[in-house]
Amino acid sequence: MRPSGRAADQLRPVSFVTGFTKHAEGSCLVRFGDTHVLCNATVEERVPPFLRNTGKGWVTAEYGMLPRATHGRSPREAARGKQSGRTQEIQRLIGRSLRAVTDLERLGERQIVLDCDVLQADGGTRTAAITGAWVALALATDALVARGLLPKSPLVEPVAAVSCGVCGEAAVLDLDYAEDSTAKADANFVLAASGGIVEVQATAEDRPIPRATLRALEDLAVAGVGELFRLQREALGRG
Amino acid sequence: MRPSGRAADQLRPVSFVTGFTKHAEGSCLVRFGDTHVLCNATVEERVPPFLRNTGKGWVTAEYGMLPRATHGRSPREAARGKQSGRTQEIQRLIGRSLRAVTDLERLGERQIVLDCDVLQADGGTRTAAITGAWVALALATDALVARGLLPKSPLVEPVAAVSCGVCGEAAVLDLDYAEDSTAKADANFVLAASGGIVEVQATAEDRPIPRATLRALEDLAVAGVGELFRLQREALGRG
Amino acid sequence: MRPSGRAADQLRPVSFVTGFTKHAEGSCLVRFGDTHVLCNATVEERVPPFLRNTGKGWVTAEYGMLPRATHGRSPREAARGKQSGRTQEIQRLIGRSLRAVTDLERLGERQIVLDCDVLQADGGTRTAAITGAWVALALATDALVARGLLPKSPLVEPVAAVSCGVCGEAAVLDLDYAEDSTAKADANFVLAASGGIVEVQATAEDRPIPRATLRALEDLAVAGVGELFRLQREALGRG
Amino acid sequence: MRPSGRAADQLRPVSFVTGFTKHAEGSCLVRFGDTHVLCNATVEERVPPFLRNTGKGWVTAEYGMLPRATHGRSPREAARGKQSGRTQEIQRLIGRSLRAVTDLERLGERQIVLDCDVLQADGGTRTAAITGAWVALALATDALVARGLLPKSPLVEPVAAVSCGVCGEAAVLDLDYAEDSTAKADANFVLAASGGIVEVQATAEDRPIPRATLRALEDLAVAGVGELFRLQREALGRG
Amino acid sequence: MRPSGRAADQLRPVSFVTGFTKHAEGSCLVRFGDTHVLCNATVEERVPPFLRNTGKGWVTAEYGMLPRATHGRSPREAARGKQSGRTQEIQRLIGRSLRAVTDLERLGERQIVLDCDVLQADGGTRTAAITGAWVALALATDALVARGLLPKSPLVEPVAAVSCGVCGEAAVLDLDYAEDSTAKADANFVLAASGGIVEVQATAEDRPIPRATLRALEDLAVAGVGELFRLQREALGRG
Amino acid sequence: MRPSGRAADQLRPVSFVTGFTKHAEGSCLVRFGDTHVLCNATVEERVPPFLRNTGKGWVTAEYGMLPRATHGRSPREAARGKQSGRTQEIQRLIGRSLRAVTDLERLGERQIVLDCDVLQADGGTRTAAITGAWVALALATDALVARGLLPKSPLVEPVAAVSCGVCGEAAVLDLDYAEDSTAKADANFVLAASGGIVEVQATAEDRPIPRATLRALEDLAVAGVGELFRLQREALGRG
Repeated sequence: MRPSGRAADQLRPVSFVTGFTKHAEGSCLVRFGDTHVLCNATVEERVPPFLRNTGKGWVTAEYGMLPRATHGRSPREAARGKQSGRTQEIQRLIGRSLRAVTDLERLGERQIVLDCDVLQADGGTRTAAITGAWVALALATDALVARGLLPKSPLVEPVAAVSCGVCGEAAVLDLDYAEDSTAKADANFVLAASGGIVEVQATAEDRPIPRATLRALEDLAVAGVGELFRLQREALGRG
Repeated sequence: MRPSGRAADQLRPVSFVTGFTKHAEGSCLVRFGDTHVLCNATVEERVPPFLRNTGKGWVTAEYGMLPRATHGRSPREAARGKQSGRTQEIQRLIGRSLRAVTDLERLGERQIVLDCDVLQADGGTRTAAITGAWVALALATDALVARGLLPKSPLVEPVAAVSCGVCGEAAVLDLDYAEDSTAKADANFVLAASGGIVEVQATAEDRPIPRATLRALEDLAVAGVGELFRLQREALGRG
Repeated sequence: MRPSGRAADQLRPVSFVTGFTKHAEGSCLVRFGDTHVLCNATVEERVPPFLRNTGKGWVTAEYGMLPRATHGRSPREAARGKQSGRTQEIQRLIGRSLRAVTDLERLGERQIVLDCDVLQADGGTRTAAITGAWVALALATDALVARGLLPKSPLVEPVAAVSCGVCGEAAVLDLDYAEDSTAKADANFVLAASGGIVEVQATAEDRPIPRATLRALEDLAVAGVGELFRLQREALGRG
Repeated sequence: MRPSGRAADQLRPVSFVTGFTKHAEGSCLVRFGDTHVLCNATVEERVPPFLRNTGKGWVTAEYGMLPRATHGRSPREAARGKQSGRTQEIQRLIGRSLRAVTDLERLGERQIVLDCDVLQADGGTRTAAITGAWVALALATDALVARGLLPKSPLVEPVAAVSCGVCGEAAVLDLDYAEDSTAKADANFVLAASGGIVEVQATAEDRPIPRATLRALEDLAVAGVGELFRLQREALGRG
Repeated sequence: MRPSGRAADQLRPVSFVTGFTKHAEGSCLVRFGDTHVLCNATVEERVPPFLRNTGKGWVTAEYGMLPRATHGRSPREAARGKQSGRTQEIQRLIGRSLRAVTDLERLGERQIVLDCDVLQADGGTRTAAITGAWVALALATDALVARGLLPKSPLVEPVAAVSCGVCGEAAVLDLDYAEDSTAKADANFVLAASGGIVEVQATAEDRPIPRATLRALEDLAVAGVGELFRLQREALGRG
Repeated sequence: MRPSGRAADQLRPVSFVTGFTKHAEGSCLVRFGDTHVLCNATVEERVPPFLRNTGKGWVTAEYGMLPRATHGRSPREAARGKQSGRTQEIQRLIGRSLRAVTDLERLGERQIVLDCDVLQADGGTRTAAITGAWVALALATDALVARGLLPKSPLVEPVAAVSCGVCGEAAVLDLDYAEDSTAKADANFVLAASGGIVEVQATAEDRPIPRATLRALEDLAVAGVGELFRLQREALGRG
């Protein structure tokens, strides 16, 4: 039995609030249960130096966590004067995941920055961030199309992410904090709507795990992510 | 005529959502129109070094702004590696304002940290932050009393803040961004419910202003803040 | 009775030594009693990015305190690797105060930087710094006029600053450290020679103060600052 | 055909030089072809704060790259004042990988730090670092046993790592820089000698990849890592 | 002919103003011509960690330069967020020079920090700083003796420093900025009153110099420093 | 008797391995006994801002020490976020030493960066670094000539460095760590092959030393450095 009473292959209640803030070109508050991440997309008419005059665009991400998003208070990174290794790892992952489903040539020489800020954390902030950031990105690119700045969306397909893990002896989907902090293995799957794999990060938390276990986690993720793609479409009114 | 159509002495719609996040000892999302600030109070059973073994507690604040809270995107302070002078100035002001209405001896040797994070900005973030932070602080200290950790609330009285300014030729209350960016003078008033002044910061943005103008701004603030005290009480169920 | 034996409305002995250092375009050592601040003006033939090609100039300030300017030694900010919030707050105040009396269009596309370094501190370093920085600024702009680089001084009028506070029950002018550290309220007034208010920063150090008290402090400042304007004129040989 | 002429399932020539430096408790220069990483283990008789008085030890790692290890010169991280996100990601991975095969209770309340410094880079520095760091760790823990400070080695089993990727249409083992920079997918496998998985990091570099491809890469890695375990044993004289 | 008209072996006018600031335990403004350095000694009743419980004390120094001490304005190190290599090199030199003439056991377990801040620079700031810092150190240690905290001064003998260099073809003493910036070789000599050498730093600025030239510079320094020792004694009233 | 059994005027075994890494334009591992420094030269077709459009080039150096190069582990500078004063002092010295024997006009508008990284330390790392860096610089400039990018080598003559010190009562050459840490005086001599002095840094570690002692150290260095020049030539195949 999971602490939340969920079935092994059951996601937490997931929801998307689009337009959560008014200034961003695309804004989406995503909730995976008690994990709440505000994803804001900013369109900038310039690219990083290595892309200048190439005709190609860029998609990148920054990640942050409000100090009291967590059970105890974490020091504010701006006050400490640097981003932790964990923060940098996550924001690099979000950026790679989004670029894997974006046609950067079609985007043209502009950059879209996704700010993913965790307002409340209960496990799985990076998978929620990727899933919500794609919605914010879709809102921003749809707006570019609507304003006639792009002939066609540069997004090739949706991307979403979910965690899986081994808790006790069972493989379970979409870990919350209670599960995450005691899991024997933990894997994050970033998957594309067409079924392809964008990124896998699997870690044995205690001792090495059998290959078959990794397979079982992958099966759970592939099944579970379908619901996320459905909710993303709904949030974008593409039901 | 103000851009928002408000009367000169009229506040923006103000609201408080208590319990906006679940981990903080006191949590309040305050909205002054389109300015939205999440205020979370954390109670820590330790004090800064200069207060150790004095029996006295401390109240302090940190302030931040999400990168896309504003019209254009501002660089993330955690990524830049330091807090701006503006950020530090505001968080020092919030801390002083709250301490002015707190009996630190009654609080005992513990510290309460108020994290004020701007989710969306439209002028007046510091005054909204002070006003909302006091609610979060009251929730946290009420909980200490309810749990028997304090015999009595250490809060002496409510505190709230509002900005005033000279726009065109008129003195107006509670400036939004459109007004703030063109005001000839700008003043922030931090006031206590009993009528006393906690802090005044008045700045001539263009050329020096007459003493009488400062008086007019003060009158507006003193009148306008009454509504904030009423809404604070309501948010805390002390209607 | 004040610790220094001064009357409630009496300034400390104030003096200006112009030309204290030889390289600066304007240099002035200002003394408010035992508070000594060296103010050096540097004229740079370039402006910050946001003013390029606008024809407008800029006036800005930096503030520092020698480690042993104070009773005990304070850590050197350069060694700590950052400026404190207090330092940034003060240097922003000095810059704003000077810009409020400068015609930036008349200055033309150049920047004047005022370095205000406290050699010895005994309370009121920010007010001394503003008062002395204006003298250094006037020396530098007069030199621009004398060299034919400006047809006319860009300074609209003199600016000076003084602190006031409530010590015991009395409102007193120009607090020294002994008074400052025990004051119940503390206010800094930046005033223009024509009588206008440039900036007010008033803080209740203990509990909120009555509006009438703020008025009394303002009256003291307005009266006291006249002497500062007289001494500034004298220092500039405009007797 | 691979640029190096290797078969798809062929490692580069791999070698270990133990005792490369004389001060470290365990020292090993590992070479995967032209990728050379110096791994030094330091035994410290103290643990990080969160482990004090728990009887448990810790294994951690730091990673660096000499500025001219690469084709062009990279800025020195010490001079830039911070470690890049990539550096932090890699050193966190090395630490996790080693802890997964270490019995931290058996290690006792001491810390072993593995410094992995890349002297020359030609792709696969993180997998070489993990493989070499385990040898340095084994040397250091064997020495603790030999000196009677530990009754038995705290190392549960060997760990090694290798990269795989899709180059052109083929899945290949142990990518060098020429392959790595053009691969369509890239995966790092950290595997234990007993066959278990310690960590998988798989990334689609261009578009999402089929699940079957990830399987093929995993098969290659599992087959290829056997040779690494054999060479590790040989290096430690456990032939 | 030297730009200043001085003879080759002639110092600039040198003077010491003791008690320049009032809070420091020892304070001295030293002037070597237009180079003015404020040296303040702070006595702290604690030592760096490596000396705790050894009964030995420590003498250390920090060096800084006001931004407009120089011809053009140099960026403020506190604002840049770090001390330059030059600053660190100089402050390490000052500390070593003073420790070489201090009996650290006799000082007892306390630390004396010498803050050397350049108010105005015209070449030779490090040699002026050493020479003035010794006076400030002597004032502070004399005060410890006078207050009965030390039975006897821990200072073994005076130390002073002077620069020499090759300008044109001539070896000259005590270079000012005009000479320093065009010298072919530059040497700083830190010498003890008893005639011993504390530190020599000699640098060929252009091409290597003959050994005989270094000898000539050393002879100049040894001769010139006598006057500095005489003035130090005078400043301390030990005429 | 020296700890190593060497005669007073005897160098440690010195060797140069050229081409130690493959990417650098010039690469040399230099060993002075157990002190091993990897020196890599990078040629960049750009110069620092102050040299742009002057037709002159630049030679500069960076220095680092692997954390476990030393007896105990030193914190990694990249992780601490800054280079120590010692590191900066050494890299400035290496750069000056190399520039003193380089014709920067002949080099043309390009920069050569020498990265000197200590793999293992046993005293004298800065002198080994200078001696090895010159070999790396010669390899890089010879390659520029060989590729027809320079008509002639910009190197005027070889430079090498060695330390000397007073251990017990004796003046000895090329101190190892055991000697260095107990020496009464320590001097580093940077000398040119033609016999000229490039830089001298002599420090009394305990009490001031007689001028005659400095002379004796200099004599030792001048004699000892000849062997270094011979080995440099041999390493470059100019036997």
